Order: sequence, then structure tokens, then C-alpha cells
Amino acid sequence: MSDQTRFTLNETDLPRNWYNVMADSPVPPAPVLHPATFEPVTPDFLAVLFPMDLILQEVSTERYIEIPEPVRDIYKLYRPTPLVRARRLEQMLGTPAHIYYKNESVSPAGSHKPNTAIAQAFYNKAAGTKSLTTETGAGQWGSALALACNFFGLDLEVYMVRVSYDQKPYRRIMMETYGAQVFASPTDRTNYGRSVQAKSPASPGSLGIAISEAVEVAATSDGAKKYSLGSVLNHVLMHQTVVGEEALKQMDLAGEYPQVVIGCVGGGSNFAGLAYPFLRQNLKDGQRTRLVAVEPTATPSLTKGVYTFDYGDTAKMAPIVKMHTLGHSFVPPSIHAGGLRYHGMAPSLSAFYDAGLIEAIAVPQLATFEAALTFARAEGIIPAPESAHAIRVTIDEALDAKAKGEKRVILFNLSGHGHFDLTAFQAYLRGQLEDYEYPAEAVQAAIQELPKVAVEA
Amino acid sequence: MSDQTRFTLNETDLPRNWYNVMADSPVPPAPVLHPATFEPVTPDFLAVLFPMDLILQEVSTERYIEIPEPVRDIYKLYRPTPLVRARRLEQMLGTPAHIYYKNESVSPAGSHKPNTAIAQAFYNKAAGTKSLTTETGAGQWGSALALACNFFGLDLEVYMVRVSYDQKPYRRIMMETYGAQVFASPTDRTNYGRSVQAKSPASPGSLGIAISEAVEVAATSDGAKKYSLGSVLNHVLMHQTVVGEEALKQMDLAGEYPQVVIGCVGGGSNFAGLAYPFLRQNLKDGQRTRLVAVEPTATPSLTKGVYTFDYGDTAKMAPIVKMHTLGHSFVPPSIHAGGLRYHGMAPSLSAFYDAGLIEAIAVPQLATFEAALTFARAEGIIPAPESAHAIRVTIDEALDAKAKGEKRVILFNLSGHGHFDLTAFQAYLRGQLEDYEYPAEAVQAAIQELPKVAVEA
Repeated sequence: MSDQTRFTLNETDLPRNWYNVMADSPVPPAPVLHPATFEPVTPDFLAVLFPMDLILQEVSTERYIEIPEPVRDIYKLYRPTPLVRARRLEQMLGTPAHIYYKNESVSPAGSHKPNTAIAQAFYNKAAGTKSLTTETGAGQWGSALALACNFFGLDLEVYMVRVSYDQKPYRRIMMETYGAQVFASPTDRTNYGRSVQAKSPASPGSLGIAISEAVEVAATSDGAKKYSLGSVLNHVLMHQTVVGEEALKQMDLAGEYPQVVIGCVGGGSNFAGLAYPFLRQNLKDGQRTRLVAVEPTATPSLTKGVYTFDYGDTAKMAPIVKMHTLGHSFVPPSIHAGGLRYHGMAPSLSAFYDAGLIEAIAVPQLATFEAALTFARAEGIIPAPESAHAIRVTIDEALDAKAKGEKRVILFNLSGHGHFDLTAFQAYLRGQLEDYEYPAEAVQAAIQELPKVAVEA
Repeated sequence: MSDQTRFTLNETDLPRNWYNVMADSPVPPAPVLHPATFEPVTPDFLAVLFPMDLILQEVSTERYIEIPEPVRDIYKLYRPTPLVRARRLEQMLGTPAHIYYKNESVSPAGSHKPNTAIAQAFYNKAAGTKSLTTETGAGQWGSALALACNFFGLDLEVYMVRVSYDQKPYRRIMMETYGAQVFASPTDRTNYGRSVQAKSPASPGSLGIAISEAVEVAATSDGAKKYSLGSVLNHVLMHQTVVGEEALKQMDLAGEYPQVVIGCVGGGSNFAGLAYPFLRQNLKDGQRTRLVAVEPTATPSLTKGVYTFDYGDTAKMAPIVKMHTLGHSFVPPSIHAGGLRYHGMAPSLSAFYDAGLIEAIAVPQLATFEAALTFARAEGIIPAPESAHAIRVTIDEALDAKAKGEKRVILFNLSGHGHFDLTAFQAYLRGQLEDYEYPAEAVQAAIQELPKVAVEA
């Protein structure tokens, strides 16, 4: 076991391939359905939104897909990211556990999101795309895609959930600094946005609504614009596996292997990026690492949702996928972890959870900010409210190990920093934050609106 | 020459010593004078403000001073920092120059400032100090010291220049998240603050005023509180030399040696931290690297100031030192590079500039934001407005090399990121920023108030 604190890799250790978990999945994938016909979608339908290379990645069963050199060249601006042993946090907790974190906050946009944004911008550029549309919640995804589009000379329209647009002006300015256009969603730029405004003029927006707007703009652009999604889809999660592949090498340098791997989940991409390479090892060697997905009690799609077919967006324009969902019409409470305010969950992750290959746990907002403050004061880095969900469960695992007198090796994904979420920390410090109960009635109502799909995979 | 982009060092390569340039200085140091008597100060006078270990470092002529293990342990949370070849910026400029930057923005507080904050907190803790006071402009220094005090269990009062306190709430919240108390200066907590408020109720404050307040609180605390300064002093600049020592090793990995080393200067610490180890090599081997200090045209202490004895603060409570100064009563225009709004300059740097060992250049605000935007779009990282001064001159050097068809190896210090300065970028993007002419009349008036000191070193 190493006595070092930070485990850095050289540029030459940057992974050459993404890992496609579908090659090893013991669960057959459910079909992806057309939102109007409920029939399995064709590549042609998806081609309205995505370039063919990404569609092929979405359905690929190849185990490894080579990372194009232009993508690796940009990864090199911030990758490989450090793996850090949180020695000061261990001391503060007085735990025999060893806590490691993969620090994805060091990317220029401040989170893991550029790992897929850069890849998606590259494939779009290669296919001749001139302009992209997307949605963003707290702004982590939007700023990552703005960064990537800037690098490849693509225009970008970002539909930003209105509550975040108002609460987080710095994120908006960051996107504008990279050259993107940002709109508060619901907007009056789309049919769907106007219909939401008409029904509820003070709508705070949601990721589901913003996705619908971004999809509508691309789908009605006569091919001039494509759409880009920051989570949920197979190819997006696959691009994030550089995180886990690096972490495997770095744990090796540390001379340890994690017994628990932890990440927060909204759509699932940072968790999957870290966990899927460890899932591969589990499937190969027999289960030896617990993989724990952490969600907010305010949007508990894994722990309280239904595992069924549902629309990816609120307006029913995106494809229908089989996933753990709270219902596409569910508008989550305005927690500060905006990146986790999504009604659904990645289909692959949903399937693995259903199959018992991963665990899930929901944690309330106040407990996550308490954990964030503990981490900031122990390790110095102020984490994103999303990442604080992973930190909460990491601390709980470390305290459990302490109570049981066990050494336990824990690895979590520090998916982003909280520099643009400091008003939330101020509210927490002033005692102005609150927990949200599980919104059982809203979820029950939303579940009534699930699509009546006959197909079951 | 390496074909890599990022040059990372292992934790084991972290420097074991700081470099004390005074051991090699060809210029004898001028005396430090008591602000009331104009006599050389005694250690006893300084001991009211600083612990003895730091006073001894301030006057030391030892070439290397060992970095204590507890300080190195905390450095390891973010050091060694990366050296990056700015290949995308080179391409964007079409220059044959090779541009490297040392990325100090990766520290938890977002700048180079923790390099000395951690050391100062350590020596204070070791001396039994319970509580520190300090000033901060834009907040980079205050958040670094808040981080460091948190690590060593010290209380901290930060006197934050009012204009920044109002413009940059995120920086304040960051300090509070680390557990510090932050006050908008001028405050009503000190005699001097109250006197400024009485004379000009709407005072935007200045670093000079904030220093006076922080010094007054420590000096009148009957030893309960010490004071900490983020730049200017010998020991502060020395703590920053870890930056240059690492850069020397990393340039070696890159297989090149810089012909030009560039840094922005307010008090001088990030520039000195990078440049002094290269100055050592210049003094040993004969001049081979140009060392360029970049200041704002709004506070041009090197290029337009007087080289003479002046007070370090506005209230004439801090010691008198020989430096390039615009006069201690000069209140700089409210440029966004708050960290550069200081009337004076580090004595060592002033002496080296006077001796022709380093160069200086002043650049206007708009040109620095233009450079910042170019850098952000080329390399992804949004720089601090302070660091943008170094980037401006780096780009000008690279374009000059292009015009002359010369290969030129340039190294600059990316002293911090601009995450908490995004409103300034918004103003720039909207065309709302302005340049400030050199405030000749205000400087002339301030120079009339210089202390009438008979001593000349």
C-alpha cells in the first residue's frame, strides 16, 4: 500500500479506448421505442437528432471503442485526472476506512461532463453538423458542451432550466464566455415552451421540459441542427468510462482495490463512468466490489420509481426507453443539486439495478450539504451539491466501518466542484435550506401518465 | 523536445525547500523602518504582528529553507501543479513560439495564494497563535488564508475591500464556507475604518485601507491576534518559489528552457514565485531568460511609480519599506483585477527592477480581457483577471515572435482561475468595461504625502 496522497498518471497513461458495458451485460437490452408509434425506433429516426457514429455507438456490443485522437488531444488538457486518498477526511472521521476520490472537478468546465461533450462535438463536427442544441439543469452539462463546441467550431443553443438560470448567473456567463447562446426554459422559442408558459406562466422549468425544447428545435430544423444529451444514453455513459479506467490504474498505484464504489446519479453518467469498469471486473472475477448509486430523496427514481417504459422528456418527443422513472410529467422539487432533477435514469443502469448488480440509496438535501461542508473543510475542495450525495454515503460507509472496526476501501467520484453553487452553501450556513419529503402524490399522479406500451422486453 | 501537452510531476517530486533569493541578491537590502520613528525596525516591533519563525525568514540570507512536513502534507492536496504546453493557443495565434503555463489555478482556493497561506498558518499555529487577521481585495488571498486557517484550526477575520465584497459575493461565501469571518472594509470595527467612513461614507475601500484595518486589529489585540499578509514581504515571496522550482523540473521534462518568464504583479508574489528560481539560474549562468512583470496601467507602480521609502498601508501603521510606489494614499481605480490594486510593490522585486534584472510592462484592462477570452477559448480555462495581464503579454510576445519568424520559448504563471470574476467577463462581452488612463494627478497628489525619510540605503 502506498503512503502517497495523490496518484497522478502521465499523459501516456490516458486510456485509448472507452469501455462499452453492453458487451458484458448479462441483461438483454430493452428496445428503444418511437414516442408516437411505440414501435422500435430505426436509425433513421434517431438520425434526426444524432450523427450516425453516435447512433452506432448507442447500439454497439463491441467491448472497446477507440477514442479518436482529436478527442484524446483535448482530454489531455485536463486528463488523466488525479486520484486522491482523502487522508484528512479519514482522520477527521477517525475511521479505519481508506477513502479515495477521483477528482473530475479539475476539467475546465468543472465536472466530468466534458468527457462526453468533447466526444459528441467531435463526432458531430466529423458528420458536418454546424449547430447543436441541448438542455442544462444547474449548468454543468451546458458549460461542458459550450466548451466542447467552442473547441470544434460548432454553434450551440442551451435551454437552461429557469430556476437555475435565475439562481446561477455565473454558469450562464461561463457558457457565454465559451460562445454559446443560453435561454431560460420554458422559452417562447418553441411550441412546447409556449404551451408550458401558457399553462403555468411562473413555471420554474425542469430538465424534462428543457430536453423537449432542445429536441424540438433540432427536430424541426430540417437537419440544420443536431441535439446533444449529457447523460442517460449508452454512448454518453460509455464516454465517461475513461474515469473508471484511469481509476483502476490509479488504485493499482495505491496498492489497494475498492470494496465500495460510490457515485451520485441523476441520469447516471458520472456513476456509470466510474463504476462500469469495476462492474466489468466484478462480472469477470465474481462480485467483489459493491457499486452504490446515490440519488436525492426529492427525485428517487431508482429507490421509489417504477421500472417500465417511459418518455425521456416531458413533451413526449424523445424516444421511449425502459428505465426506473418517476413519470415524465413529474416536476422535481427545486433542490440545489440541479443535475439530479431528472424523472428517469439511464436504461443500462436501471437494468443493472433491477438485476441486483448495483445498489441504490436516496439521501436528503440537508445531510448532503452537511457532508459537503465536512469534505470542504477536510480536503479543501468545495464539492458540487450533486457530488455531495456521493460524499454523504462515503462518510456513512466510513463511519459504519469505524463502528464495526473494519478496514474498508472506499472510492467515490468527485464529479464536480461547487464554485457556482456557493449561494446554496450560504443558504445552508444560514440555516435556510430545507429537506423535501418524497413527493409521493406528485409521483403517483405522474405515473398515471406513463405510456401504455404493450411491448415488454 | 517532448510531444506531450501536460507535464505532471509525482508527489515525490514536490520541492523540499523554498528558495530564498536574498542569498543571491546582488543588491543589498534596504532597511525596514518603523512607521513612527523612521528608525530601522526591531524584531520586537514585528513580533506584534508576526510569529518569530516568519520574522527570521524575512531577514534570512540562507539560500534554501526547508519546507516543514505538515506544510508539504497539505501542499500534496494540489501540488505539484501541472505545467501545460498551450498548443491550442499557439495554433490559434499561428506562432512559432512555444507557450507554456504553470497552472496554479488548481489549488482548492483557485490560485497560487495557498502556497504561502498554508506556511503562514503553520508557523502561527506552531507559535501558539489562536487567531489571525488579514485583508483581501478580490478575495483570492482571503479564501486561501481561510482554507489554511481551517486546516490548522485558527480563527480568521478578513477585511475585504468593499467594492469586491459587493461585486464578488461568491468569494465571501467561499471564505465563510471555510469558517472565516468576513467584513466589508472600511468597517466600523477599527479606529482607522471609522475615520475613513467619517471622511468618505461611500468609500469603495482599497487594499491599503484594508491592510490598515487588519493590522490595527492585530496590533491592538494584546497579542491575542496576529496578522498575515499575502504578498510583498520576503517570506511570502519565498513561500511561492515552490512554483518556479517545480517549473524548472517540468521545463526539463519538456526538453526546453524558457527565454521569457512572465507573471502579473500586484504585490509581486506569483511573479516572484515563478521567476526567482529562474533569476537564480540567470545570476549563476549569466542572463539567459527575460523576466517580465506585468502590471495594470491603472496601478503602474513599477513603470510609473517612484522608487523610495513608503508606508505599506494607508493608515501609516505598517512598516516603511523601500519600493516602487504610487504613494500610500493613492486609491487605485476599480479595475476588476482586484488583486493588483495596490499602491506599492515587493521591496525585493523593486530592487531587482531598479537593478535591471527584471523587466516591467503595464497593460490596460480591455486588452487583458481580450487576452483572457482568447485563452479561455483556446485552452478551456477561464483565467482570473489578474492572470490575464500575464496572458496579454504572453500573446504579444508570441505574436512578436511570429512577426520576426523566431521560435521563442515562453513560460507564464496562470496564477488563478476566474470562476468568481465571471460578472467581469459578462461586462466585457457586453461592451461595458472601460480602460482607465494612468491616474497621473492622483499619483502626483499621493506622492506629495510620501514619508520624509532621511535614510537612504
